[in-house]
Amino acid sequence: MNDFLTVIKERRSANKFLPNIEISAEELDDIFSLVKFAPSAFNLQHAHYITVTDKALMDQIYEAANKQYKVKTASAVIIVLGDTEAHLNAGELNEGLLHLGVMSKQEYDMTVEGTIQFYEERGDTFKREDAIRNASLSAMQFMLVAKAKGWDTCPMIGFDPDQVQSILNIPDKYIPAMLIAIGKEDTSSQRPRGYRKPVREFVTHQSF
Amino acid sequence: MNDFLTVIKERRSANKFLPNIEISAEELDDIFSLVKFAPSAFNLQHAHYITVTDKALMDQIYEAANKQYKVKTASAVIIVLGDTEAHLNAGELNEGLLHLGVMSKQEYDMTVEGTIQFYEERGDTFKREDAIRNASLSAMQFMLVAKAKGWDTCPMIGFDPDQVQSILNIPDKYIPAMLIAIGKEDTSSQRPRGYRKPVREFVTHQSF
Repeated sequence: MNDFLTVIKERRSANKFLPNIEISAEELDDIFSLVKFAPSAFNLQHAHYITVTDKALMDQIYEAANKQYKVKTASAVIIVLGDTEAHLNAGELNEGLLHLGVMSKQEYDMTVEGTIQFYEERGDTFKREDAIRNASLSAMQFMLVAKAKGWDTCPMIGFDPDQVQSILNIPDKYIPAMLIAIGKEDTSSQRPRGYRKPVREFVTHQSF
Repeated sequence: MNDFLTVIKERRSANKFLPNIEISAEELDDIFSLVKFAPSAFNLQHAHYITVTDKALMDQIYEAANKQYKVKTASAVIIVLGDTEAHLNAGELNEGLLHLGVMSKQEYDMTVEGTIQFYEERGDTFKREDAIRNASLSAMQFMLVAKAKGWDTCPMIGFDPDQVQSILNIPDKYIPAMLIAIGKEDTSSQRPRGYRKPVREFVTHQSF
C-alpha cells in the first residue's frame, strides 16, 4: 500500500488479530528503517523500541496488560519507550555534523550545552513528559509505516508499566509510553470505524 | 505528494520559512479532515488544535516561544492541546455506536463507566501524560498530512506554556503539548538532514 491517503484512511486500530501469523525481525527492522525519520525535540531521538515475538514473553505481557485478548493473537507486541535522559546524548548525536564541518566547534559546544541546560532547567516532570511526547510522535509514524507495509496495529495504554519494566529488564531511565500490538487484523467481526468529531469541534481558528 | 514513502522521507523539520506565504482556513481544515483519523486511547480524541495566522497574535506567540525566528516567517502557528478531561466525554463520543445499534445499552454503560474509572483510578499525573501522549500521536499525523498537502512543518517545545495559555484564552483543562510552525520551507540555507541512529541502536528484539 503506497498511496498516502489510502494509508491514512485505512489505518485503524485492530481489535482482533488472525492467530499464528509470524512477523520476522527483518520485517520489523524494515518498518523501523522508516520510523527513524520521525522528528524529535533537538533531534534527541528519545524513542526506543522493544519488539516481543517470543510466546512465553508475550504471555507475560498479556498478564501485565489486563489480559487484553489482542495481545494473545498479535504477531508481536511492541513496547514503545521514551528516554528521560536523552538530552545527555546531545554531544554524541551532534558529532556527525561537527565532523562534516556543517557545525563549527563553537556551534557544537553551544548546541550541546544549550540542549542539556534546556532539560535540566525544566526538571524531572518535563523530562518525563518530553520522553512520552517524543516516543508518541515516533509511535504514530510506526503505526502508519506498518500499515503501508501491510500490517495492522493497535496502540494500548491499559497495562502495568512497572510489571512491563520488570519483565523486559528495562532500565529506569526509560518510560513505557505505550504498547502496540501488531499483526493481521481478523476482520470477521469488525465494527464500524470509531466515531470521529467533525473538524469544527476540535479545531479553533485564532484563539480558543 | 501522494506517495507514502516519499512523504515519510521528505518530511523534515523546517528551520526557516519563506515569508509572506498565506495558508487559508480552508487549507488548514483540509489537513484536519485527515488528522482526525489518528487513533486515541478509548477513542477519546484528546487533541484540540488552535491555528494562529493573525500577525499580532503570532508576534505574541513569538515572544512566548523564546523569539524563535521561524515563528516570524511561518504561515501559521498551530497550538496542539491535549484535553486532561477527555474521559468525561466518553458518554457523548459513544452515543453514535449506541444509536446505530452497534453497542447495546449495557455495553454502552459499561464502556462509559469503565473509561471514566480507568482515568479516575490513575489520577492527575496520568491524565496529564495521557493528554500529551494522545495529542502527540495526532500531531505526528498532522505533520505528515501537511507534508502530503505541500506544507512544511516544525514541531516546537521551547515556549512558555502559561504564556501561550493566557494569550489564547485556553481553558486550564487543556495542556499545550507542542507548537507546530507551518509554512513553505526556505531551503536556500538548508542543512543536511539531522543524523539518525541506525535501527540497531534504538530497537531491541525480545528484551532490553
